[in-house]
Amino acid sequence: MKIREITVTPVAFRDPPLLNAAGVHEPWALRTIVEVVTDEGLTGLGETYGDLAHLEKVREAADALIGFDVYAQNRLHARVSAVVGDAVSDLHGLTGVATKEKSIDRVYSPFEVACLDIQGKAIGRPVSDLLGGAVRDAVPYSAYLFYKWSGHPGAPDDRFGPALDPEGIVAQARLLIAEYGFRSIKLKGGVLPPDEEADAIFALRDAFPDLPLRLDPNAVWSVETSIRIARALDGTLEYLEDPTAGIPGMAAVAAEAPMPLATNMCVVTYDHLPPAIAQGAIGVLLSDHHYWGGLARSVQLARLCETFGIALSMHSNSHLGISLAAMTHLAAAVPNVAAACDTHTPWQDGQDVIAPGALRFSGGAVAVPTAPGLGIELDRDALAVMHEQYLKCGLTARDDTGYIRRFDPSFPTTRPRW
Amino acid sequence: MKIREITVTPVAFRDPPLLNAAGVHEPWALRTIVEVVTDEGLTGLGETYGDLAHLEKVREAADALIGFDVYAQNRLHARVSAVVGDAVSDLHGLTGVATKEKSIDRVYSPFEVACLDIQGKAIGRPVSDLLGGAVRDAVPYSAYLFYKWSGHPGAPDDRFGPALDPEGIVAQARLLIAEYGFRSIKLKGGVLPPDEEADAIFALRDAFPDLPLRLDPNAVWSVETSIRIARALDGTLEYLEDPTAGIPGMAAVAAEAPMPLATNMCVVTYDHLPPAIAQGAIGVLLSDHHYWGGLARSVQLARLCETFGIALSMHSNSHLGISLAAMTHLAAAVPNVAAACDTHTPWQDGQDVIAPGALRFSGGAVAVPTAPGLGIELDRDALAVMHEQYLKCGLTARDDTGYIRRFDPSFPTTRPRW
Ligand SMILES: [Mg+2]
Ligand SMILES: [Mg+2]
Repeated sequence: MKIREITVTPVAFRDPPLLNAAGVHEPWALRTIVEVVTDEGLTGLGETYGDLAHLEKVREAADALIGFDVYAQNRLHARVSAVVGDAVSDLHGLTGVATKEKSIDRVYSPFEVACLDIQGKAIGRPVSDLLGGAVRDAVPYSAYLFYKWSGHPGAPDDRFGPALDPEGIVAQARLLIAEYGFRSIKLKGGVLPPDEEADAIFALRDAFPDLPLRLDPNAVWSVETSIRIARALDGTLEYLEDPTAGIPGMAAVAAEAPMPLATNMCVVTYDHLPPAIAQGAIGVLLSDHHYWGGLARSVQLARLCETFGIALSMHSNSHLGISLAAMTHLAAAVPNVAAACDTHTPWQDGQDVIAPGALRFSGGAVAVPTAPGLGIELDRDALAVMHEQYLKCGLTARDDTGYIRRFDPSFPTTRPRW
Repeated sequence: MKIREITVTPVAFRDPPLLNAAGVHEPWALRTIVEVVTDEGLTGLGETYGDLAHLEKVREAADALIGFDVYAQNRLHARVSAVVGDAVSDLHGLTGVATKEKSIDRVYSPFEVACLDIQGKAIGRPVSDLLGGAVRDAVPYSAYLFYKWSGHPGAPDDRFGPALDPEGIVAQARLLIAEYGFRSIKLKGGVLPPDEEADAIFALRDAFPDLPLRLDPNAVWSVETSIRIARALDGTLEYLEDPTAGIPGMAAVAAEAPMPLATNMCVVTYDHLPPAIAQGAIGVLLSDHHYWGGLARSVQLARLCETFGIALSMHSNSHLGISLAAMTHLAAAVPNVAAACDTHTPWQDGQDVIAPGALRFSGGAVAVPTAPGLGIELDRDALAVMHEQYLKCGLTARDDTGYIRRFDPSFPTTRPRW
């Protein structure tokens, strides 16, 4: 089962003006779709970031992997490592520090997912079976709330409406929960002064007294601010995500905060685990197979977290259905995924490169596909449309800061901001 | 691919009088052979300990696993966990402390190996491919030297001859190296006063100046003795294995010893890793899929070790060819196995339950089988003979101490002994 051909296709899809610590989402979100074809004609799918520097490495890796066996994952990883070399690139600050290891694992990931998709199809088994077998039939996701503008400047308002205060956030939560049935809520913070974001959490707590809540300011608070807000939010949060930057800073907050701290920023590669564990910096790791080296390595990461008493949930960037399928298989096969996973799915609002129907939300959870492989099929027409959008949209890398500065030239990137 | 039938067969094979800290090997070594058969008629093999308390749990688990899918490893582990419950049994002191988790992982292991054998056969792939793919074509093993009597009391001398001093140890090394081509040497210690064992290492160093050497006194030395002997052996050892008992003791020795410390005794389950890492107790973990929960979980363990800068090699008890095949697939698929693995194969001296030819030593290494599954076949005649031997030998559990006391009633079990 050797790789005969790999097709790498950058795509773009419409994205609402979601605000975060780095700025605001541009009108188009970029992703890269990887199709791996074996000598026997089996096809596997992977999905990764669309930023150009990364896309170029993915393309280089694709060329280098022709002829590899789809089971030879150790060798495949070593080859990707050789292709990426010492090139350290990262996409934006929101997934933490860039390292060489993270760059390698990020390029490797879509190929690994595609190879698992192929392996599953070859034996008529879902990918979850290749990861130890599903321990749950459906994977719960959280309602991922964003402060947002009513629409992109100069464009009509989108259907989600504005959310710039607690009332807007609660209204957004009601909309997402009505449509998807989510049973937990995450608010992307780092946008407004911390006390205003705390007020949004209080409003959510009042409106949804039974749902677990989380807040993620993407590390733009100082240690002092983090401790102050954490104490103010005592009793309201399942966890507080990346209030401040760096392992020592997180450890200082963790020592004082009444709730666990979660991260997808200060621990983003294996090298970060020993110091984070030694310093007691985190209680929850938000894993992400897109930069933790694919699905099988994420299972290994889960074992490590279990060993050290670190709870596990899952991080998300803007993504399409291939990633949602991969995340669902992984979370289904990892017993210690303890909290609802993050997903940007509602914001993609029906746009996808996969044929509809394979992934359905019910009660906020996605049923684990039982069809062979990832259990999804590429919609080639949709892929062609999204690739056209990529070519026409004029974007080649995500730049939330550059975009917000077109409308707010003084938008600050000083850290900590508060 | 559901499990239709499981056969559990205890076997016994002749074992020479190998001395260790607990006493001496009895004339028969016990193992348990597990055969798993699916509804489609595929068969998988596993091998585990033969001690009765363990055998009984394996039999209970076998009954409980009928109907399980061979890919549903998470669920299968949970079922074994329920069967084993709080029963904590261990075989003998030589593989460290017994815990509930270790007891569960030990019972689970042969079923996991058998299921991987089946998965591999079903898709026509070696088990190494199911673990990430082989990164080496052959797995190096070490010459595992033992102090020994010339034969069991009352029986004729065995062909290996006596080894009770440095000359005997060097002669034994020459014999094993001549027959197997080993390129590294491990001496089982804890038998003679420490300075005499150090003298054996010096003799081996002189006789084999280019081969890595190790010494394993099975934790019968005090911290003080360990540090004194470690210093005396400076420059001679690749690693010193379990000189003293417990994580704090090992940490105290590690702080002073000039070479890395290895263990298969103070870290034998996931719970031991956080304190051992925090205290810097070990430099090398000798993993063993028989008590670390099978092959896939051993890959997870390897990632954890890599993350924390712990080197990896492999422990062995007396075993047959099913275990050797499993160890070889695992070590082939784990890039960070850094040292030659231990094996008792030479002491089994051709006795086996598998058909000959599948596993061959060349230059001290076993070529990784490329046939589907484990790449071995059960020899049913040999299995029947070995099961007869089990029934007739009168042993139901390993008892090295009870056996040596028949000849040396004052054999001490005080710890530390030296
Ligand atoms: Mg985050
Ligand atoms: Mg040992």
